[in-house]
Amino acid sequence: MHANIPSPKPLPVPLPKAYRLLNHGPTVLVTSTHNGVRNVMAAAWNMGLNYEPALVSVVIDKATLTRELIEASGKFALNVPARGIAAQTLAVGRSSGRDVDKAKHPDKFTAYGLNTFMGSDPDLPLVEGCVGWLECTLVPEPHNQERYDLFIGEVTAAWADPRVFANGHWAYNANTPVGLQTLHYVAGGTFLAVREAFEVAPAKTRP
Amino acid sequence: MHANIPSPKPLPVPLPKAYRLLNHGPTVLVTSTHNGVRNVMAAAWNMGLNYEPALVSVVIDKATLTRELIEASGKFALNVPARGIAAQTLAVGRSSGRDVDKAKHPDKFTAYGLNTFMGSDPDLPLVEGCVGWLECTLVPEPHNQERYDLFIGEVTAAWADPRVFANGHWAYNANTPVGLQTLHYVAGGTFLAVREAFEVAPAKTRP
Repeated sequence: MHANIPSPKPLPVPLPKAYRLLNHGPTVLVTSTHNGVRNVMAAAWNMGLNYEPALVSVVIDKATLTRELIEASGKFALNVPARGIAAQTLAVGRSSGRDVDKAKHPDKFTAYGLNTFMGSDPDLPLVEGCVGWLECTLVPEPHNQERYDLFIGEVTAAWADPRVFANGHWAYNANTPVGLQTLHYVAGGTFLAVREAFEVAPAKTRP
Repeated sequence: MHANIPSPKPLPVPLPKAYRLLNHGPTVLVTSTHNGVRNVMAAAWNMGLNYEPALVSVVIDKATLTRELIEASGKFALNVPARGIAAQTLAVGRSSGRDVDKAKHPDKFTAYGLNTFMGSDPDLPLVEGCVGWLECTLVPEPHNQERYDLFIGEVTAAWADPRVFANGHWAYNANTPVGLQTLHYVAGGTFLAVREAFEVAPAKTRP
């Protein structure tokens, strides 16, 4: 629907500001590769964890192929999808990389028409149609992974779409195309979309 | 600015659905009490962690009074503020409960004019002007708390504002008053606001 917006070159984001790509709570696409197998899944449960070193966290269920690839390769990327690929985001959140019909498609990327490009690491596919990307090295925490499905990554490179992120801030305004809005998952096939940013002054203390 | 919208009685949210109050990535207010000392702080880094038992996580810096109160009392509440209290949310995110002028105010709630009410637990103040509330018991994880400032809570009770949450889903639409939108923190004094929900059908696999 909105997928035909041409994409400019991603803008590098300084690592101590990388958390800002997740700060407002978007659903992400987690991408990973190991031994030539690639996968992509959706994850609403993600958050920043530290500024410097830049740490992020994401919940990845034990049943997923993504988890197997991350535990084997020790790395993953978080991609912040925009509304233009909402249908694909939903689809890769509902299907497993293990169930792809291999006679037709090598992986979920091609099965659902998600194109990828390369950032710093040739083994971390980044997804076109996203507006933020974080390449991460797994910080192994076996207890968290086993007990809570909680994975921690140190961000090694980050980028954003310069149409909606500038000077370390999301820059959504009333003229931002709908297809570039980040996705905030509710349930079922429903998302909330962010619109323009607004500023407030902090409340003063009462007399 | 939007604070005069009268609030209806909060609607109980079944615990396995409590994560949905955080699923779309709002900034929260963390409230806590110990030995008669109350506090409230803002936290953009929060996420759901499990359905049943209902677990949530939130990052709480070592310097905060909130952390001292949570570690002492073993509990906290997450309150999902709406735009009507954006200025207070920003203010309690920038100030410490330790720096309140005690000659004028007992705590940050009264200093910034945040009213509270009681849910299930008389020791967990819940904040008026929010649209979701989660009472939590701390799940002690000393390594996570020390190394990552990461706190995990088991949700023991949850509520939502029935004007914007119904049948286990956020129900934002074009007619929702601006003051009831959840807050998604960018940086500085800037937030993004969510608007209406939209539905998509999942992408089909390509031929």
